Amino acid sequence: MADTMFKKVAFIGIGLIGSSMARRMKADGLADEIVCCARSEATRAKALELGIVSQAVENPAAAVYGADLVVIATPIGSYGTIAEAIAPVLKADTIVTDVGSVKQAVVDAVGAHLPSVKNFVPGHPIAGTEHSGPESGFPELFEQRWTILTPTEDTDPAATERVTALWRAMGAMVDHMTPSHHDMVLAITSHLPHLIAYTIVGTATDLEDDLRQEVIKYSASGFRDFTRIAASDPVMWRDIFLNNKEATLEILQRFSEDLTTLQRAIRRGEGDALETLFARTRKIRRGIIDANQAD
Amino acid sequence: MADTMFKKVAFIGIGLIGSSMARRMKADGLADEIVCCARSEATRAKALELGIVSQAVENPAAAVYGADLVVIATPIGSYGTIAEAIAPVLKADTIVTDVGSVKQAVVDAVGAHLPSVKNFVPGHPIAGTEHSGPESGFPELFEQRWTILTPTEDTDPAATERVTALWRAMGAMVDHMTPSHHDMVLAITSHLPHLIAYTIVGTATDLEDDLRQEVIKYSASGFRDFTRIAASDPVMWRDIFLNNKEATLEILQRFSEDLTTLQRAIRRGEGDALETLFARTRKIRRGIIDANQAD
Repeated sequence: MADTMFKKVAFIGIGLIGSSMARRMKADGLADEIVCCARSEATRAKALELGIVSQAVENPAAAVYGADLVVIATPIGSYGTIAEAIAPVLKADTIVTDVGSVKQAVVDAVGAHLPSVKNFVPGHPIAGTEHSGPESGFPELFEQRWTILTPTEDTDPAATERVTALWRAMGAMVDHMTPSHHDMVLAITSHLPHLIAYTIVGTATDLEDDLRQEVIKYSASGFRDFTRIAASDPVMWRDIFLNNKEATLEILQRFSEDLTTLQRAIRRGEGDALETLFARTRKIRRGIIDANQAD
Repeated sequence: MADTMFKKVAFIGIGLIGSSMARRMKADGLADEIVCCARSEATRAKALELGIVSQAVENPAAAVYGADLVVIATPIGSYGTIAEAIAPVLKADTIVTDVGSVKQAVVDAVGAHLPSVKNFVPGHPIAGTEHSGPESGFPELFEQRWTILTPTEDTDPAATERVTALWRAMGAMVDHMTPSHHDMVLAITSHLPHLIAYTIVGTATDLEDDLRQEVIKYSASGFRDFTRIAASDPVMWRDIFLNNKEATLEILQRFSEDLTTLQRAIRRGEGDALETLFARTRKIRRGIIDANQAD
């Protein structure tokens, strides 16, 4: 057998992200053994049936026993409880990482329980779909997408290096930054867009019945993109907003001011102001296309 | 030669929508002759070079001379001037239609100039991309997408029938409704989403340089979809907001109230309220998938 990167990998949570990682690790022989922990019986059965793990248990401590890599891939709100449960079972050299969309709160919640934070490498793959559950994962999810790792001052560089190598082996491009900087960047690129999408689809949900039916029928004109974003996992997103409150509220404040400016321009019929505002946003799109993050 | 639907079709404006219609008409032999009018020399040259029209002129009256169908496909703000220019040249039975994203203002602006409104059939294909110009069009653009026609009480049903048949021949599904109802539905499905997308991408444009670069780099997490919407034609969208002011401002007001509710729930850390709000929006997505308007 060729050298694998890890002997035993334990996933705590086996949804879209966890199952995609597990599939890729299995496909590319990156781990000798892959197990998972999931709270729901149905999820455990599905993960076993799909053949992406060799064992699926309910107890986090049982899953991580003997593991040299633990991947926490549940909604962020459960991290503290999980860290507390697995801490006594971790080996001295077990690396712990995660895939949560918020990083400073995760560092605080997990760090409070681990026997040592030097082997904790917080991570966030910038990849996903609006689907959830182990059946939604696929091994190419991270291909040519960024994964951000946010090691702290206490993190052992050797642990960061091993997790970086793992993500590269799964096809991702890897960047490192501080947890708080990550949270500000993601507040703009992800958390605010999701908040807005949830809001606008919610506004449509409250319409009178017949109007709502027509909104669904004619959704191809822009609204459809928002409904895809707003179909993302509710519990995951609840936890993101609860755990990245400051950055989200700050960027939301800027957004609201800008929206008020546009609203006033429409009310006053200021065509030149509208055209100027609409023209300058094309540049950012061009930047994204140049950066190969759009088709 | 088989029976064509129209002998001479004149496009006023030959951008994404006009050129897609012209390409489809040519491909399927729906017209004997297709000409266009465009203000810019470059656009006329491109339309001729692409072979989608047999003639391209600068003067709207010259283009519509002898036409039995005129399609106005320019930004809405120019409709009044165009209607005034072509009115003296129209034959008594020339059908005039348009593809504008707002309908009541169009009915008013065009109706004020036409010798008779009985052959004016206002229309709006719910299809498009973020690209503009004659080179962006393609004949399948309307395939399996809705086109809404908004005939008024004065419109001759026979004219509506011919325009309906044309859209069906171009692959579209056709619905009829009143102009003002159209404007309310589109304010929700299209105008508000575009306004929001322009705003959020504008907010990102104002960020400090280094943060903006990172937003571009990590755009795959939601923001990217907004930049695509916000890359749409600025003049077209300026005119849409100026001409659908009331409906847009009304739905924007509802949206702002809903956003404030979410903002308060985040600030207060009300997890249950957030989860409830996020969970109910999935239903609308399911409705859209069932309606075959999403992949």
